[in-house]
Amino acid sequence: MPMRKEVWRQLDPAAHKEGLSLANRGILCAILVSSLVAILQTEPTIEALSPLGFSLFERLIGLVFLVEYVLRLWAEGEDPRYKGIVGRIRYALTAAALIDLIALLPSLLIPGTTNLTLLRTFRLLRILRLARLGRFSQAMRDLGEAVRARREELLLSLMLAGMVLIFSAGAMYLIEGPDSPAQFGSIPRALWWSICTLTTVGYGDVYPHTVLGKICSGLTSIAGIGLIAMPTGILAAAFSQAFQKSHSASHHSRPKEVLRE
Amino acid sequence: MPMRKEVWRQLDPAAHKEGLSLANRGILCAILVSSLVAILQTEPTIEALSPLGFSLFERLIGLVFLVEYVLRLWAEGEDPRYKGIVGRIRYALTAAALIDLIALLPSLLIPGTTNLTLLRTFRLLRILRLARLGRFSQAMRDLGEAVRARREELLLSLMLAGMVLIFSAGAMYLIEGPDSPAQFGSIPRALWWSICTLTTVGYGDVYPHTVLGKICSGLTSIAGIGLIAMPTGILAAAFSQAFQKSHSASHHSRPKEVLRE
Amino acid sequence: MPMRKEVWRQLDPAAHKEGLSLANRGILCAILVSSLVAILQTEPTIEALSPLGFSLFERLIGLVFLVEYVLRLWAEGEDPRYKGIVGRIRYALTAAALIDLIALLPSLLIPGTTNLTLLRTFRLLRILRLARLGRFSQAMRDLGEAVRARREELLLSLMLAGMVLIFSAGAMYLIEGPDSPAQFGSIPRALWWSICTLTTVGYGDVYPHTVLGKICSGLTSIAGIGLIAMPTGILAAAFSQAFQKSHSASHHSRPKEVLRE
Amino acid sequence: MPMRKEVWRQLDPAAHKEGLSLANRGILCAILVSSLVAILQTEPTIEALSPLGFSLFERLIGLVFLVEYVLRLWAEGEDPRYKGIVGRIRYALTAAALIDLIALLPSLLIPGTTNLTLLRTFRLLRILRLARLGRFSQAMRDLGEAVRARREELLLSLMLAGMVLIFSAGAMYLIEGPDSPAQFGSIPRALWWSICTLTTVGYGDVYPHTVLGKICSGLTSIAGIGLIAMPTGILAAAFSQAFQKSHSASHHSRPKEVLRE
Repeated sequence: MPMRKEVWRQLDPAAHKEGLSLANRGILCAILVSSLVAILQTEPTIEALSPLGFSLFERLIGLVFLVEYVLRLWAEGEDPRYKGIVGRIRYALTAAALIDLIALLPSLLIPGTTNLTLLRTFRLLRILRLARLGRFSQAMRDLGEAVRARREELLLSLMLAGMVLIFSAGAMYLIEGPDSPAQFGSIPRALWWSICTLTTVGYGDVYPHTVLGKICSGLTSIAGIGLIAMPTGILAAAFSQAFQKSHSASHHSRPKEVLRE
Repeated sequence: MPMRKEVWRQLDPAAHKEGLSLANRGILCAILVSSLVAILQTEPTIEALSPLGFSLFERLIGLVFLVEYVLRLWAEGEDPRYKGIVGRIRYALTAAALIDLIALLPSLLIPGTTNLTLLRTFRLLRILRLARLGRFSQAMRDLGEAVRARREELLLSLMLAGMVLIFSAGAMYLIEGPDSPAQFGSIPRALWWSICTLTTVGYGDVYPHTVLGKICSGLTSIAGIGLIAMPTGILAAAFSQAFQKSHSASHHSRPKEVLRE
Repeated sequence: MPMRKEVWRQLDPAAHKEGLSLANRGILCAILVSSLVAILQTEPTIEALSPLGFSLFERLIGLVFLVEYVLRLWAEGEDPRYKGIVGRIRYALTAAALIDLIALLPSLLIPGTTNLTLLRTFRLLRILRLARLGRFSQAMRDLGEAVRARREELLLSLMLAGMVLIFSAGAMYLIEGPDSPAQFGSIPRALWWSICTLTTVGYGDVYPHTVLGKICSGLTSIAGIGLIAMPTGILAAAFSQAFQKSHSASHHSRPKEVLRE
Repeated sequence: MPMRKEVWRQLDPAAHKEGLSLANRGILCAILVSSLVAILQTEPTIEALSPLGFSLFERLIGLVFLVEYVLRLWAEGEDPRYKGIVGRIRYALTAAALIDLIALLPSLLIPGTTNLTLLRTFRLLRILRLARLGRFSQAMRDLGEAVRARREELLLSLMLAGMVLIFSAGAMYLIEGPDSPAQFGSIPRALWWSICTLTTVGYGDVYPHTVLGKICSGLTSIAGIGLIAMPTGILAAAFSQAFQKSHSASHHSRPKEVLRE
């Protein structure tokens, strides 16, 4: 079945050797454009410019992705793992295929809803398409692996960050609670302050008012920011490592290796 | 006394060789669940859902930890350091055993208090249980050591951070003090601004209003943030190092050592 | 034409071997002083001190740069690439020469405008001169190269940062949108919150008000800050590398090399 | 003159071999205590507790530092560089001796002033004593050297940071200026926004209100934060290096060297 093979080679990012195939480039563009449109459409003042245009575009793009989905389902039979009807069902249940389906359905179902929350959810699901971008990039695939390799560190540092957040929230609950019950009247409430402070975001909606609270907050800030920055740092290091690994790997796969210092 | 030995092996995280024992897993869960409940209970709107349920749960969990504490005290006799009555007293006075006791007592004493501050303190002490989690993890034990190894650096950088905080507070006291006495009228008051600014939290409750104050604040920010970030960075580096050391150590304890560069 | 050669040697930063030539030092000063004046002149209270003085200074400095531009155009004939009339036109169309021209014209054209926006744009263009500073520094030239070498990493991490920004904005649009339509009523609006939060700036003009929104915002903050910090980190690493490379290179070019540990 | 030698050995931190001498430990305590008192005294509510006590303490501490200053001046004759009257004058004009004198004089002159600004300046000068702490620590002395070694990098990155600040302020002046003249009406005014945003402090007193301004601010934030963080990062790296160098050096000076990888 050479035609199915050709379709498969066009659609599967891993099957095509040199860079992305023409079909995948087109799908990439469709994803980017339709996501941008979906983002802009959530803004009422922009949607009001041409509600019909947005609606038509959405149905069109939904049709394109439907065709792509069906073709992909059919062509995936080339992959030995997904042969036959059972294989196709197995493929349709992979996370990748499910995201494709979930991101595609809202475009076809939109006109049927008047419920606002449902409408918002549907619109958001369309943006889920962006998550598909990752599959087209080798670096992104390596990324997931790098994060998985540092799983333990990440978990431990998240646990530590959680404990720092809880203890500093607890201290502020004790000190500031009686004076500002709305903001520090319970540990869950004080946790909002903890997160805002220790991530150094500091919106300014919650901050200590008493002298003791300010002293406690100051000491907590200096000690705690380093601990909260740890999962952040580990994540960033894992990504940076994955970038370099994937980059040097792509160099090694070429005929003439470039020796890097 | 083989039964005591078995209890000891179940309760002491270091005595059990492969991972955590069944008893310790149970205690771990009890700590996590009871801490979560203690956190949620501080929120009046949540406690109001079922005051009786929360109270009963707290007594039950207090009982569980009491039994654990007594069993641990008894079984610790297996450890040569804590043999006999004198050894048990010595064990009961270790930081670990004291935290266990302090975190356990509030659960049994709660019904007796009507004083709000005392009640809040008692509730907070129950969350102290989370500090016990550290003992169950080898990585956490290495962590303390790593921090201790960088003691000097940490102290010196904290001293430096303190000096930067004080000098920038002093400068703003001189410049902004006459115009905003409530916020910059004394160095201790200006220190609150220093901490908020140099940790980059920036709540927005205190900021310079005069032109000179803004220039001074801008220069201070750019110069000072690096110095304040130092204890934070050293702490994070020590933790990261401890993670990797503990991780490679756990690899080394296996039959085939993995050579790490 | 030894005189043209001498002018060229004086004006071209790369032609003069040891440091900067006298003429270039003068131009450097003129750039710094005139930019400072241009910055201060935008402040009405400062310009009001001596409108005539500012205007005269601007014309004078415009004349200086015009002379420099013409001389440079003439002397650049020494460079084999820019010989003859065609070569001069080719030189005049390089990015460097265009910036010189654009930064120079406003100083000569200012008196003719009464349109405020045009006036502001003209003033801003004068500050564009600062961009010329880069050309006088070897380190700056290496910088651009370093950034170009990490192009892929930078792009990928920017893409990732963009996705984190969009998904967190989408989540807040769903959760907070119905309650705060002005701030979270669409994804483009929620993006302002995303950027303020994930860069940890946190102005405080936009923050979640509902409990669910705060939980979502807290989780997003902790997870997302690391990803947003990535392009920042990559950029900083590239610059730091360029500094060290350029520094060791400048040492190597000297007769007696200094061995650095 | 063995007595002068003994005094010198007690007072000069470099003359005494093992750690700090008894006299220097005493001076260190006096510096810390008197600085703390000077900081607390700026707070009117604290000074009001015992104005006489604060005043007496200040005179006493002034006397102690005066005696120390005179003794040091006399004993410094042991140092070959500062022999005789001329040498003493040369010593008295070193930065260290001048700081000692400036930090000492206010304690003796205070009662004579009623001018508030002068009083505040005098109080602040007393806190300058903290700067003397650096001289007692070997690590601090190495620190200055480390910063000096990275002088060029630091300067270049500060220049770059300055350019990023100015260009982003210029962009906001153009975009937001017409709508918010008080905050973005000139580049110097917009610079306050630049600094608050790019250091991620974000007080919230100044932020863009127009859509275009928000887009520009968002893009600037993501691109610029990395560049602003550079002098910060270089400074922190220099300090961290100095710590480790000074630490390993102190190990090397001991009889049995510890080989560090």
